[in-house]
Amino acid sequence: MNTNDSLLAALRQCLGDNGVVTDGDLAPHLIDWRKRHTGQALCLLLPRTTAQVAEVLRLCRAQGLRVFPQGGNTSVCGGSVPAETGRNVILSLARMNRIVEVNARNNSMTVEAGCVLADIHTAAAAVDRLFPLSLGAEGSCQIGGNIATNAGGTNVVRFGNTRDLILGLEVVMPDGRIWNGLRTLRKNNSGYDLKNLFIGSEGTLGVVTAATLKLFPAPRSVATALLAFDNVDAAVDEAIRLQQRFPGEVVGLELMSRSEFEISLRHGHNLRKPFAGATPAWMVLVELAAAQTDGLTEALSAALEAAYERGEMADVVIATSEQQRQDLWRIRHNVTEANTREGMGLTHDIAVPTYQVPDFLRRAGDALAARYPDATPVVVGHLGDGNMHYIAMFSHAFWAAVQDKVGFQRELSHVLYDIAAALDGTFSAEHGIGSLHVDEMRIYKDPVEIALMQQIKALFDPDGMMNPGRVLPGTGTTAADGHATH
Amino acid sequence: MNTNDSLLAALRQCLGDNGVVTDGDLAPHLIDWRKRHTGQALCLLLPRTTAQVAEVLRLCRAQGLRVFPQGGNTSVCGGSVPAETGRNVILSLARMNRIVEVNARNNSMTVEAGCVLADIHTAAAAVDRLFPLSLGAEGSCQIGGNIATNAGGTNVVRFGNTRDLILGLEVVMPDGRIWNGLRTLRKNNSGYDLKNLFIGSEGTLGVVTAATLKLFPAPRSVATALLAFDNVDAAVDEAIRLQQRFPGEVVGLELMSRSEFEISLRHGHNLRKPFAGATPAWMVLVELAAAQTDGLTEALSAALEAAYERGEMADVVIATSEQQRQDLWRIRHNVTEANTREGMGLTHDIAVPTYQVPDFLRRAGDALAARYPDATPVVVGHLGDGNMHYIAMFSHAFWAAVQDKVGFQRELSHVLYDIAAALDGTFSAEHGIGSLHVDEMRIYKDPVEIALMQQIKALFDPDGMMNPGRVLPGTGTTAADGHATH
Repeated sequence: MNTNDSLLAALRQCLGDNGVVTDGDLAPHLIDWRKRHTGQALCLLLPRTTAQVAEVLRLCRAQGLRVFPQGGNTSVCGGSVPAETGRNVILSLARMNRIVEVNARNNSMTVEAGCVLADIHTAAAAVDRLFPLSLGAEGSCQIGGNIATNAGGTNVVRFGNTRDLILGLEVVMPDGRIWNGLRTLRKNNSGYDLKNLFIGSEGTLGVVTAATLKLFPAPRSVATALLAFDNVDAAVDEAIRLQQRFPGEVVGLELMSRSEFEISLRHGHNLRKPFAGATPAWMVLVELAAAQTDGLTEALSAALEAAYERGEMADVVIATSEQQRQDLWRIRHNVTEANTREGMGLTHDIAVPTYQVPDFLRRAGDALAARYPDATPVVVGHLGDGNMHYIAMFSHAFWAAVQDKVGFQRELSHVLYDIAAALDGTFSAEHGIGSLHVDEMRIYKDPVEIALMQQIKALFDPDGMMNPGRVLPGTGTTAADGHATH
Repeated sequence: MNTNDSLLAALRQCLGDNGVVTDGDLAPHLIDWRKRHTGQALCLLLPRTTAQVAEVLRLCRAQGLRVFPQGGNTSVCGGSVPAETGRNVILSLARMNRIVEVNARNNSMTVEAGCVLADIHTAAAAVDRLFPLSLGAEGSCQIGGNIATNAGGTNVVRFGNTRDLILGLEVVMPDGRIWNGLRTLRKNNSGYDLKNLFIGSEGTLGVVTAATLKLFPAPRSVATALLAFDNVDAAVDEAIRLQQRFPGEVVGLELMSRSEFEISLRHGHNLRKPFAGATPAWMVLVELAAAQTDGLTEALSAALEAAYERGEMADVVIATSEQQRQDLWRIRHNVTEANTREGMGLTHDIAVPTYQVPDFLRRAGDALAARYPDATPVVVGHLGDGNMHYIAMFSHAFWAAVQDKVGFQRELSHVLYDIAAALDGTFSAEHGIGSLHVDEMRIYKDPVEIALMQQIKALFDPDGMMNPGRVLPGTGTTAADGHATH
């Protein structure tokens, strides 16, 4: 046997024959769903138990392998595919997908890391509870990946990020030690908070194998409206007022620019424009949810009609049926696919404090107009969190003619990131760093903060075996990976 | 000059003459408010700026001094007074008490660490906002201490612990590096979460000098009721039902045993028993808060009257005026002082998952009855979080006759901690570890978890200069401090 054969034999000894994949089934795990990042690996590992994860990590460490954990492979930052070079293995949690316990009285659920988010929703709904994390990839993303990236989504305005929804974790350290922190306690002030260190660390410090999640009462009623504004200042003002008026009940506050709205309608199936006349400059899709069974739509209607009478908005459409509600949300949910059809969109995941959103949009619009006259600004975002997916949209023809696509994108992105940074914002609000934004970490983060992170990385993973080249500068083949975007 | 004189001169060079206290004004900082923990120190340091904190930490490090940060000195675990031996200095944040910025539109406030919690409440109320952290010591505790201990209190059931209320921190590391993490962003997925590592680390990893806090809309209405139950199972069931019925609106759920209720009434000024007839076995004080201006008390009354009709509770008193509401809360707020008058109460800060509360109380009651027949179980706690301040109450006469008071208390406490641990609970829910519970960390925590914490401590504070002997076993004069309780 050559070296690789003996290595694979040892891995099969750990995981069984069907726990080590080297054939054609490996290919889909080497490329992301948007086909922008590719990597290579000796094999895909499919453990069934936490003990197997520990054993396989010890083996990988002894053999000097580089380990790339993978959940549903839905990262948009190159965070879920291995590096292009090196002795890499992919550690998939897909077979660890048991829902271990659902405890409705305790509003908690314990799951293995490979559970698909939608299956967790279903298990919660079966006991009349809500697990509020909600995002586009929920049909295929896995909770372990959500935890690793501290995923956001459309419900953050009410329920927080993934971080806020986790009661406890089980983590396997790079040296094979298992930390069992699967607690359902609401209060436990006994030492340092390790849980939050692993949440959002993108698999660079250890492997999350299980988690205990917070559940919430399932809402009894929902009210939805689409608001239209002639300028974004008015949209932000109204969002702030609605959160004051309905605290704890605003569960969605999605912003769309006219450009985004029109793109979604143009490329959608059976999507109808909900307004008569010309489309106003900005739209906000607002959704409330509440425990009481009735009166919510009436309360929202009364508040919005009064606001309309006071001239606070240009138009308002209130959903009076579930069908109308779904029609409004379909416009929002269609944007990713519609944008792909429209042209080449250079997308960003920026956040600023919500009250700074108008200033950001003005400065960003001015900068694009001055430096990139061929770009159309397209905005879709989570207004309650100040999180904007700001897109510079180019025609396919324009983009085809760009010579240095990587350099072009980088320069444009940094114009926007500079503006966000000047407004106390961030270049990565909810998607994380992956391999894509390692350079930005070096440029935009406080040097003390980066140094502390690098110290923690060196402490927990002294061999640099876990997800090298991801998240932090100087931890792997950054240069090779960072430019793999195309 | 002798060594201490030159050292004090160097510290005065940093902080000015009135920034270094060695005279009689030092004494109150060497003992806790319950007079159970004492320590000694060369001096009290009173920096005015973050730069001064950094400079003084560098100086202390170079001189081999041990630094004990202190806020309002309201710890109940010996966490806020220095050790009994060693070359100690106390670092007080009391002069860093500026409210730096209040931003109502952003629902955020930036404050220095020495701000008294009640002053933060006032500043929030001035712009019609709520900072929900609420606890007995709020008139004197400082936000830096609240952050260091991840303080809990009566509003956790709705708004979470201190951890959940912090958007950003500024921290000075033991080597004098300043991490400026004062962010107001709701989303920022760019690297490891350092913030939560410092929150709850009790000053052992660095000094929190400022924080950005989350604000919430000030509630427009409040509804309060006292519920009485013949058994604790019924009390827990009702608490769970109320949280289902009024999600996001239950802001208080305080449990009291009949023994605690009667002690509070017996030793209170002008406290009246709100029930006719015999006092039932368990009381729950429930409070709702909401954005709407009316209908809340009516909704709570309707829910409780229906529950009473169904036989779910033994009695119910609904506050129909602000005066009645305050009368009910005064029974709850009087317990600490009343318990002191009643006898010698050995108090614990236990949490179990809420649904396990009845099982814990039964097992704890049985164990006390069997092993400590002179003890009366007295219970007051935050039922929504499963957090019980479980008190074994002895007569002053009994306690005076106990020879080895430290050993007696330790043995009794461990009987209760064993029961909590068997029910997935904790020996320290909201008060933290301080010097008092270092032994319990060794006994009750997962060895992997302790090892990871010790690695982090050694990484951030390699000289062990920050709060030695606190939180973690093996980091200072643990043995000497751990038994300083009397």
